[in-house]
Amino acid sequence: MAKHSRIEGVLSPVVTPFGKDLAPDAGRFVRHCKWLLKNGCSGLAVFGTNSEANSMSVEEKLKLLEALVTAGVTPAQLMPGTGHCALTDSVALTKRAVGLGCAGVLMLPPFYYKGVSDEGLYRNFAEVIERVGDDRLRLYLYHIPPVSQVPISLTLIERLLGKYPGIVAGVKDSSGDWSNTKAMLDQFAKSGFDVFAGSEVFLLDTLRHGGKGCITATGNVNPAPIDEVFRRWRSAEAERLQAGITATRAIVQKQPMIPALKAIIAHFGNDPQWRAVRPPLVELGREQEQALFGELKANGFTMPGLAG
Amino acid sequence: MAKHSRIEGVLSPVVTPFGKDLAPDAGRFVRHCKWLLKNGCSGLAVFGTNSEANSMSVEEKLKLLEALVTAGVTPAQLMPGTGHCALTDSVALTKRAVGLGCAGVLMLPPFYYKGVSDEGLYRNFAEVIERVGDDRLRLYLYHIPPVSQVPISLTLIERLLGKYPGIVAGVKDSSGDWSNTKAMLDQFAKSGFDVFAGSEVFLLDTLRHGGKGCITATGNVNPAPIDEVFRRWRSAEAERLQAGITATRAIVQKQPMIPALKAIIAHFGNDPQWRAVRPPLVELGREQEQALFGELKANGFTMPGLAG
Repeated sequence: MAKHSRIEGVLSPVVTPFGKDLAPDAGRFVRHCKWLLKNGCSGLAVFGTNSEANSMSVEEKLKLLEALVTAGVTPAQLMPGTGHCALTDSVALTKRAVGLGCAGVLMLPPFYYKGVSDEGLYRNFAEVIERVGDDRLRLYLYHIPPVSQVPISLTLIERLLGKYPGIVAGVKDSSGDWSNTKAMLDQFAKSGFDVFAGSEVFLLDTLRHGGKGCITATGNVNPAPIDEVFRRWRSAEAERLQAGITATRAIVQKQPMIPALKAIIAHFGNDPQWRAVRPPLVELGREQEQALFGELKANGFTMPGLAG
Repeated sequence: MAKHSRIEGVLSPVVTPFGKDLAPDAGRFVRHCKWLLKNGCSGLAVFGTNSEANSMSVEEKLKLLEALVTAGVTPAQLMPGTGHCALTDSVALTKRAVGLGCAGVLMLPPFYYKGVSDEGLYRNFAEVIERVGDDRLRLYLYHIPPVSQVPISLTLIERLLGKYPGIVAGVKDSSGDWSNTKAMLDQFAKSGFDVFAGSEVFLLDTLRHGGKGCITATGNVNPAPIDEVFRRWRSAEAERLQAGITATRAIVQKQPMIPALKAIIAHFGNDPQWRAVRPPLVELGREQEQALFGELKANGFTMPGLAG
């Protein structure tokens, strides 16, 4: 597949709505996904860290993915997270994603054991690729050491890219460490390896160094301004636009990220059920919410067209 | 349920054999489980860390558990690990374990998110207990911060024990920190909360402070001598017996534990397929094996009756 046909731009790791019984709510999920695609997201990285993906069973994720496609969301705009601790789970969800025609999959390393070798991680990704056995697979590696505690090293990327060029398609770097993102860009961007920043804070820098966009939590609530940085990164306005989205991010991340995103959607969409999170997460308290909404409003934040 | 009917003694977190296709091998699994029960284990903590439990799907674990019971292993000797990142997975496997009549379940906290609150962890365990909704449930908390990175605090235990006395039955402490095990014993052992050391290194100390035994990796290969410490901990021989099992442990843990256990079973059972591990683990290299077997033999180590 030629490089230009790959997904790029602003992707949102879509937060997952739960009902009162904590079951995933496909209706609210589809509505939020469609709002995101109308408001600046070029793609949806469903089942990411911010989606509470690991708090759901494989079956629950399969159902949500199928609900999205059935509801008319274009699979070429989807990059579901499909990496699990269990090889067989990763294979099952990845196979289904490829079968549905998804743009790619974003794959965590198995994250239970710590201090594992690059050889072991290589075998994991290679085994998934071989078992899926489909040239349409586009695998994006998910480097998020602050949460997974299992990093994806440059050496591992080099080895995977050497063995599976075209299939191993890129990375989301959620290390929060620009020097690591830059090293990935410097070393691999020219080989058709698409680097996405894990936060919009590094979006402009990433684009200037040959990256393809960002996959960012706050894409759930602030997609249009982030997309504007993506579309106008070569313009004279780029720095000012970047400063704007960085400021919004700074407000949101004063609170625990996932409950904060859900509280914002609940508040601006006038839909309190959106606050629900699965354990071990806990929703924001009243005071946390008031501080968050107050600062966002003072900053001119809106979510146009969200409230049904 | 009266406290004396609870499981105690030496439990092995049974290593899981895989075939050439890396599928779980129920035949070899049943044989090893029966060998363990004949050779000193009073119970089997299948699906623990050393079982590569998180490297298997829920379905794969259900099949192994059912194979054990079908093969005649007494469910009252089983304490399967049933804690997953996904609430629905934990509920599914726990329900089945209780339905089969297992002695208890050993439950990891959800381990993807780090730095979560005790409130969030409390909700996780409480939600599982409520959804399983069965008075026969005996839930043992699994504290293994070096791997899970999500600790189970004394405060959390106190709250769970207050709300679900009799159901919340104990803990496996794999912190490797005796002062933590001792604090658990001092604070909760008299409330009918059964503390198991996570390694036989602390077995004698644990028993002397009111604990119930140990659930230990090396129980897979050295069950009889460990059981002897359990049976004779009040004897004049106790210190000497403890020194012996501590010495064997020290040899094994010079190598990565899970591949080492499997290599030992492969070698002493003359069954090379036992070496197989799932990614992200990697089997021992030839030199590691030779060092391991050499030291074990020099120390008089045997696994009587293992080779078919």
